[in-house]
Amino acid sequence: MSDLPKRVKIREVGPREGFQFEKGNLTLEAKISLVDALSATGVGTIEFTSFVSPKWVPQMADAEAMVAGIRRAPGVAYEAIWLNVAGLERAAQHRERLALRPLFGVAATDTFMRKNTNRSVDERLEEMPGWAERYQALGMDWLDVGVMAAFGCNYEGDVEPRAVVGVLEKVERKAQACGSRLGGIGLADTMGWANPLQIKRLVGAVRERWPAASIKLHLHDTRALAIANVVAALEMGIEYFDSAVAGMGGCPFAAHKGAAGNVTTEDLVFLCQEMGIETGVDLDAMIAAGQLAERVVGHELPGKLKSGGNLARYRARAKAATTAAAV
Amino acid sequence: MSDLPKRVKIREVGPREGFQFEKGNLTLEAKISLVDALSATGVGTIEFTSFVSPKWVPQMADAEAMVAGIRRAPGVAYEAIWLNVAGLERAAQHRERLALRPLFGVAATDTFMRKNTNRSVDERLEEMPGWAERYQALGMDWLDVGVMAAFGCNYEGDVEPRAVVGVLEKVERKAQACGSRLGGIGLADTMGWANPLQIKRLVGAVRERWPAASIKLHLHDTRALAIANVVAALEMGIEYFDSAVAGMGGCPFAAHKGAAGNVTTEDLVFLCQEMGIETGVDLDAMIAAGQLAERVVGHELPGKLKSGGNLARYRARAKAATTAAAV
Repeated sequence: MSDLPKRVKIREVGPREGFQFEKGNLTLEAKISLVDALSATGVGTIEFTSFVSPKWVPQMADAEAMVAGIRRAPGVAYEAIWLNVAGLERAAQHRERLALRPLFGVAATDTFMRKNTNRSVDERLEEMPGWAERYQALGMDWLDVGVMAAFGCNYEGDVEPRAVVGVLEKVERKAQACGSRLGGIGLADTMGWANPLQIKRLVGAVRERWPAASIKLHLHDTRALAIANVVAALEMGIEYFDSAVAGMGGCPFAAHKGAAGNVTTEDLVFLCQEMGIETGVDLDAMIAAGQLAERVVGHELPGKLKSGGNLARYRARAKAATTAAAV
Repeated sequence: MSDLPKRVKIREVGPREGFQFEKGNLTLEAKISLVDALSATGVGTIEFTSFVSPKWVPQMADAEAMVAGIRRAPGVAYEAIWLNVAGLERAAQHRERLALRPLFGVAATDTFMRKNTNRSVDERLEEMPGWAERYQALGMDWLDVGVMAAFGCNYEGDVEPRAVVGVLEKVERKAQACGSRLGGIGLADTMGWANPLQIKRLVGAVRERWPAASIKLHLHDTRALAIANVVAALEMGIEYFDSAVAGMGGCPFAAHKGAAGNVTTEDLVFLCQEMGIETGVDLDAMIAAGQLAERVVGHELPGKLKSGGNLARYRARAKAATTAAAV
């Protein structure tokens, strides 16, 4: 396990992934309270809302109000997402309060791309010049590319690493043709198909092709393997992970009632703590945020640490008991 | 990952671990229905009841009725546990229907041993001659030793591999003095302290000391790392795992309301399926048993596959769709 990184960076995506799934009407205040709690955990990045059509995702109609309402903590990057240029323009209105990134999402399979955006992968690539131009105008001459369904697709089945590399090569060629370039590479296990062996195969294949690129993983826990997949990624030296407080979220386009949220942030932070990897996150504060997330949404959420508890506390208590007994 | 075993053997412990935690009065019929469903999954061993005092564990007062009521499937070993010789004598009455094992449980820490059995580890070892003699009379001249709290203890904190090896050495010396011997070695993460690095350290230390012993892992998912710990164990070549259908169970002596059940059987079977390791278990049948377990206990249970679904089904559907499209 010699490739374990010393430190990992976590992007907290729980509010963005989670709030859109809730059936109950969450108040703006409740949603803001969770983002504010996350701001106090030490996590470096919080993706907290989406600039998407209120017609399709009414839960996100308050994106502007969220931006205005959260208490921004120093040193935290507040991120949002968008799916079309109209959404980007809304976000860009708030660029002094948001950390804008040049997002470009694509799927590894045509069927999932169509379900998600009503376009094939090639049709999606045809849209790139508009995106690259707008991002360049905002000062960003690269694209952060996220590949959905990178490990498998409920519609098309297994996805081979060479297929993902092929899509990324197309993206890179197109980006260069637009005067932009391939920036970070996000590999998303959107529908929970990954296993530890496959994580190593795909990360290995992408790194072999783009040795200098930073590779970020976005892993859903649909089939219980998310934390094991993180360990496999850590063993490959991966330093960037998305995760969701309390395991909030899911995937609306996966045709799957069991679609689960991202790997749970507090469980990921705990794993790192126990394996000697720094995250910069205060685990107790993140557990408290996970417990708050359950109160905000009004039902149980899947993460384990919020009931299992931080072993650091047990260690301290055991030590105190031993010391007391020795006195 | 060259040490991955080709095949693992699973002991299903859900009924034994799980039923004792249920507050509602489960009927004998309901409990038997779950064991019968498990018998049809292909799992080789089912630990389904405890011969313990009905005064302390009223949920297990029906142990004899369970033995009489289950439909035994060919090729399945039906196991039970006991905590004292009186319990063993009850079990031994049914030896033609039960697979008796020469169980000897001990904790890695004195405090957990006392909480569990009101004895120190050394006091527990003093009881061994009586156990060894009784097991010998039943035709078993070895002891299957289970070490509780082998990875950490809520009362005493971290447990070092050398402490576990030390306890096992004492057990072995005592066993030899009784004309018995050390048989299988079970390492139990009773309170959810293990992480993948520590799994490798402890398994490595025990195997170094007893290269020929079969090492079995019993991992609780208190802090979300159970499946990742299984992967670490597989990488060390471990072939024997306890697991609980739907993730039933917990630990009554852990002073811990968040104490979680064992690693979930159907999630473990799925992991093995995806990593190319045989279990002999029909994953769809085990998922159905997990769904039945939820109906039997009347509340949600933690396993993921029963909502996430078997990827083999998605693969088959994707293939059928591709074939249909090509016609």
